[in-house]
Amino acid sequence: MKIGIDMMGGDFAPLEAVKGLQTYLSTSDLPANLYCIGDEAQLKVILADFGLVSPDIILIHAPEVIGMHEHATKAFKEKQQSSIAIGFHMLASGKIDAFISAGNTGAMLVGALYSVKAINGVSRPAIASIIPKLNGSTGILVDVGLNADCKPEHLNQFGILGSLYAKDVFAIENPKVGLLNVGEEEGKGNLLAQASYHLLKENTSINFIGNIEGRDVFQDRADVIVCEGFTGNIILKLAESLYDTAKERSIQDEFMHRFNYENVGGTPVLGVAKPVVIGHGISNANAFCNMILLAEKMVNSNICGHIIEQFQS
Amino acid sequence: MKIGIDMMGGDFAPLEAVKGLQTYLSTSDLPANLYCIGDEAQLKVILADFGLVSPDIILIHAPEVIGMHEHATKAFKEKQQSSIAIGFHMLASGKIDAFISAGNTGAMLVGALYSVKAINGVSRPAIASIIPKLNGSTGILVDVGLNADCKPEHLNQFGILGSLYAKDVFAIENPKVGLLNVGEEEGKGNLLAQASYHLLKENTSINFIGNIEGRDVFQDRADVIVCEGFTGNIILKLAESLYDTAKERSIQDEFMHRFNYENVGGTPVLGVAKPVVIGHGISNANAFCNMILLAEKMVNSNICGHIIEQFQS
Repeated sequence: MKIGIDMMGGDFAPLEAVKGLQTYLSTSDLPANLYCIGDEAQLKVILADFGLVSPDIILIHAPEVIGMHEHATKAFKEKQQSSIAIGFHMLASGKIDAFISAGNTGAMLVGALYSVKAINGVSRPAIASIIPKLNGSTGILVDVGLNADCKPEHLNQFGILGSLYAKDVFAIENPKVGLLNVGEEEGKGNLLAQASYHLLKENTSINFIGNIEGRDVFQDRADVIVCEGFTGNIILKLAESLYDTAKERSIQDEFMHRFNYENVGGTPVLGVAKPVVIGHGISNANAFCNMILLAEKMVNSNICGHIIEQFQS
Repeated sequence: MKIGIDMMGGDFAPLEAVKGLQTYLSTSDLPANLYCIGDEAQLKVILADFGLVSPDIILIHAPEVIGMHEHATKAFKEKQQSSIAIGFHMLASGKIDAFISAGNTGAMLVGALYSVKAINGVSRPAIASIIPKLNGSTGILVDVGLNADCKPEHLNQFGILGSLYAKDVFAIENPKVGLLNVGEEEGKGNLLAQASYHLLKENTSINFIGNIEGRDVFQDRADVIVCEGFTGNIILKLAESLYDTAKERSIQDEFMHRFNYENVGGTPVLGVAKPVVIGHGISNANAFCNMILLAEKMVNSNICGHIIEQFQS
């Protein structure tokens, strides 16, 4: 397996990316080949410093970098020699099987949507976050920010994408899909939620269990919670802030600590043709390692193939 | 001051309402006159049992009760002798200065909107919740569920209503108003948030400070956070569930315990002509006492008068 890594992306690049590689390689039984994309001269030195010299680590020179605050579309178009643009060229042309980056999120999305492209039939690819549950298991929230304005058919598709992600990457059998809403009963909610409920209920390819209220987000009611990217993004960021709160206030509690973004690593772009994982700008070694593991799972499970099959039928 | 209390509303009525009265009376220096609306015979016995016999406690007989799951509009119309309907008649006709209930939320809203009525110029009354902040202070989130679908002008008005609530009831000078959004910069968000941003920015009657992300909800960035009732309701319920989580997991932390709904008591209906406070169905004594205190503050501060003035100008 060949995983491409943008070594120049994120606030602490390339150091934390290198450390993340080290963690991954030291813990993996059968590690993937890692295609490290970035400034070759700089990377050569730092990888050697960490003793990371092996035929499994392949350096790919990228003379340019897209900054964290550059205009995404413009930068992606103009900086064709950037680590992100090169990563997507390699992914699109099959030279790597997955691509991860903690760099400019907008540029990553541009690459995912315009270079790798949405799968036929998927009208809106989405990003998904994991939600820790009180019983120790893991739920999925989708969309968490790619689509701030949605139509009912988009939420219906998120139900399918989230289900396949839960099955393939989290090994959840027949995942329960819930619609984030303001009440339990059918008929509750804003116009979008009301209309989405009907579509989800009629959707025979998922296991729809009804509405999920805010109080049930961390309960074991649904494995996949579907919402538009506006509410999803706000919940995701609020949940992540709970980890910071626990840390700052010295709250020693395993559940609170599961909100740590590092354990998540990054979010996949669900519904595009190849595995793409986007990390936080603040990604550290642990986060980079988990992003590689997520990419590995996405490739091994053939989630993109399953999405293609599902949307063909 | 005359405060009307629906003694028959809530899952533990009338016992917890009576206990709440007792707490209020035993801690208040200059208690309001309490108009206790409900089944007179039943209330007489239980009030006497608790030693609550005084000229300040006035029994108002209501032979009917609107159940927690009855159809709100139908029940309000047909049960004119219910505690909720009688309470609103008394409020509308000036026999009491404020009305509180932990009963059927829908019926309370019907009463607030059709009996007391929206203030001229307020297109959408809203409900507000308090948000505990990490620095110990208190913020306000509005709307938390009355308006699942909103237009930009509604969010703009919520900014005004929330500001007056923060000033009058929480004594916050020049409250900072933020718009709940998915990014910090102007131009971020869904279509509603983008359009609302412009209106809030131009609104000279409030102190608008820009967008507030999910991670900043519990930070001291804004005193008033404005959003549509869909996202607001989900955040409110999620936040309330954090208290249950802390309790279940024996997390001893003051901040986590501030999510306890009891401390809040209830939510005011902002933008209607008289003070109305709606409590949780599960309200206990502490919650009832806090609802009375909230109603008292609303009357004393003349918040309804201030809203009328603001919307006249």
